[in-house]
Amino acid sequence: MSAPTGGPGAVTDLAEEVARATEALRASRPLVCCLTNEVVVQISANALLAAGAAPAMPRHPAEAAQLAGLAGAVLVNLGTVDDVQEEAVRRAVASAGAAGVPWVLDPVAVGVLDHRTALARELVTLGPVAVRGNASEVMALAGAGGGGRGTDTAHGVEEAAAAAADLADRSGAVVAVSGVRDLVVAPGGRRLLVDGGSELGTRVTGFGCALGALVAAYAAAAPTDALLAVAAAHAHVSAAAGAAAAAARGPGSFAVAWLDELDRVGGADAARLVGAEHAPAGAATGAGA
Amino acid sequence: MSAPTGGPGAVTDLAEEVARATEALRASRPLVCCLTNEVVVQISANALLAAGAAPAMPRHPAEAAQLAGLAGAVLVNLGTVDDVQEEAVRRAVASAGAAGVPWVLDPVAVGVLDHRTALARELVTLGPVAVRGNASEVMALAGAGGGGRGTDTAHGVEEAAAAAADLADRSGAVVAVSGVRDLVVAPGGRRLLVDGGSELGTRVTGFGCALGALVAAYAAAAPTDALLAVAAAHAHVSAAAGAAAAAARGPGSFAVAWLDELDRVGGADAARLVGAEHAPAGAATGAGA
Amino acid sequence: MSAPTGGPGAVTDLAEEVARATEALRASRPLVCCLTNEVVVQISANALLAAGAAPAMPRHPAEAAQLAGLAGAVLVNLGTVDDVQEEAVRRAVASAGAAGVPWVLDPVAVGVLDHRTALARELVTLGPVAVRGNASEVMALAGAGGGGRGTDTAHGVEEAAAAAADLADRSGAVVAVSGVRDLVVAPGGRRLLVDGGSELGTRVTGFGCALGALVAAYAAAAPTDALLAVAAAHAHVSAAAGAAAAAARGPGSFAVAWLDELDRVGGADAARLVGAEHAPAGAATGAGA
Repeated sequence: MSAPTGGPGAVTDLAEEVARATEALRASRPLVCCLTNEVVVQISANALLAAGAAPAMPRHPAEAAQLAGLAGAVLVNLGTVDDVQEEAVRRAVASAGAAGVPWVLDPVAVGVLDHRTALARELVTLGPVAVRGNASEVMALAGAGGGGRGTDTAHGVEEAAAAAADLADRSGAVVAVSGVRDLVVAPGGRRLLVDGGSELGTRVTGFGCALGALVAAYAAAAPTDALLAVAAAHAHVSAAAGAAAAAARGPGSFAVAWLDELDRVGGADAARLVGAEHAPAGAATGAGA
Repeated sequence: MSAPTGGPGAVTDLAEEVARATEALRASRPLVCCLTNEVVVQISANALLAAGAAPAMPRHPAEAAQLAGLAGAVLVNLGTVDDVQEEAVRRAVASAGAAGVPWVLDPVAVGVLDHRTALARELVTLGPVAVRGNASEVMALAGAGGGGRGTDTAHGVEEAAAAAADLADRSGAVVAVSGVRDLVVAPGGRRLLVDGGSELGTRVTGFGCALGALVAAYAAAAPTDALLAVAAAHAHVSAAAGAAAAAARGPGSFAVAWLDELDRVGGADAARLVGAEHAPAGAATGAGA
Repeated sequence: MSAPTGGPGAVTDLAEEVARATEALRASRPLVCCLTNEVVVQISANALLAAGAAPAMPRHPAEAAQLAGLAGAVLVNLGTVDDVQEEAVRRAVASAGAAGVPWVLDPVAVGVLDHRTALARELVTLGPVAVRGNASEVMALAGAGGGGRGTDTAHGVEEAAAAAADLADRSGAVVAVSGVRDLVVAPGGRRLLVDGGSELGTRVTGFGCALGALVAAYAAAAPTDALLAVAAAHAHVSAAAGAAAAAARGPGSFAVAWLDELDRVGGADAARLVGAEHAPAGAATGAGA
């Protein structure tokens, strides 16, 4: 792809690439093997189905290993990890690595709880294609302080920018910091920003975790540029959230409408939300129309 | 009951039997002990409650054994099986068998993953009253190829007809192949077909798994004819899905409306969707009005 | 607080205390560590978020122990207990006790299943701030018969009044018996009654379990009077349920609207539903306006 920070025409090229990634997701319907937490399994599977992907959620370590080798991508989310899932994660990551299947790490509440913090710091050395978390989680994973409260972040996205860039360089993974304006950083420092979304997303359990599942789906559907894929996943989710919030009466109806809108959002709707570094949000917002 | 493929009046008799099964479900409110997967526990419990039954979902093997002996029916769904649940399943099946409680096997993703394929092939020899799956799952369980992708079927319902009949004869279970037009086959070859439903059912996680739970509920409520009970469960689900799809904006609102409609559907609405073998869909559809 | 059964002005004082508890919940946004069952994790987390609290649901025993010491309150719900969760519960209860964090026991289906009945009878001796169940569960926990069917109660609230008072005196916990009119009893015999709600709450899985999570949230937000806190939680839930039922088409849309209304209900709406013992429902209903 053309560099999104390039000369004239670059913003339009970026929008076209995002739109194309969304179309590729729906055309390829990738199977996403999710090792995720029990609170969010249902909304994660429903979000994948609504957006155009296919979910599978094994628990048995032998099945996780087998499925990770067959899937288009793997998600590892540590939200309710126990010993059985930890073994499943280790075997799935090894299997994905051997088969060349991309995998994504979502370090839920890392920095708050010691067991998963140690586990996540080990996993991030094993070659994930992407890491997605909130600012506190990314900072904690990078060893730069952090530590939110449960799944709440204690930091803004920009506070985590240096830690995200450092983590990307050290791990080789694209690092996404989800927040009001999402920041996505590739190893070497290339960055994209994603606007849109809704504050109601913080009032629905699993909204961020389902976004992690969609990051994996996009990594399968658009494998040639992980930065673009991760940004497109955020844009798809944010475009759907914005549309859903417009009609919602509260967090219950928002979650329902969000699933509807994940199905309805077009690639151009998502593309409008993605901007290159330093592009003002307004300019990026108008670019893809 | 009169044979559904019999002479004049048989179609009407069939419709009356289906409607009566739905009324029996609501009158008896059977307790259904579900050993099912963690992705679908919530929608399965909600579907049972909405349709008129009562759910219970134990995980501890000792509790599964005790509850299986007290319940009206037991569901075994292997979607996220692990060692603890496998032990719970074995003990529940033994307990149900000893107490004469009917149990249903839902072989989720059998044919894709080796561990559960071996387990399902063992379980089907232990006397389930019914097996419910998609075409690929039924074919894989019967040893006739199969093998979908995750929970997606790679085959149409009619492709699985011979495997379903063979599996029914060998296992003694009624075998249901869920799809666009559901096929239900009893040992010996008696068959029923169920129309209706909505493609949106494939966009909501747990739709098929919740149908498996309702098959168990109907097996408890209408124990004298398992073929009729399994077909009535499919018809109840499909009638609700058809009504829900008419008002839905996408998969999120469809899932909500489907629960509403499971509560609202009348026995006659369900009965209209069930036809005997070879009856044209149109004729079957008009018969129960 | 003033005694709710006191002289003139007492009813108004009670209403003000309930309204203040709801405001305190939203202002403090307590972190509630839930060790709960896999059927209801999602709706429990969503109910906490909608009402104004923050959920965390660990499974690993080491993480449960750590989080219980950091949280505002802990919920222990035995609905799908297994050996891993049982260890997590024991460690979380010890940790909460050491840190002075209040914890709540929800004895789901105690009296029906032997394993959890023995476990709950042990846990209730370890100092919960509150116990919340239906009539059969409270009676079984108190050793006074009981024994419903799954999560269904076989008894009315008033039948459990003596058992609840006895259990409160022996355990030192506030005991809530949820039903058509909820009864909340403190050690020593002080009681509050909560009206409102909807029969649709019995048609949605996890409605009662989510109420248990909100009892814990209120115990964190209003720690100085556990009786008041537990009653306020019931009132918040019932006010939201009443508003939701008015617009719902069935159990699916009711559950969605209930989450919306948990967010919208004002403290005064909740306060209207709480009455002191022997106060006629009508009088209590009018008092807080």
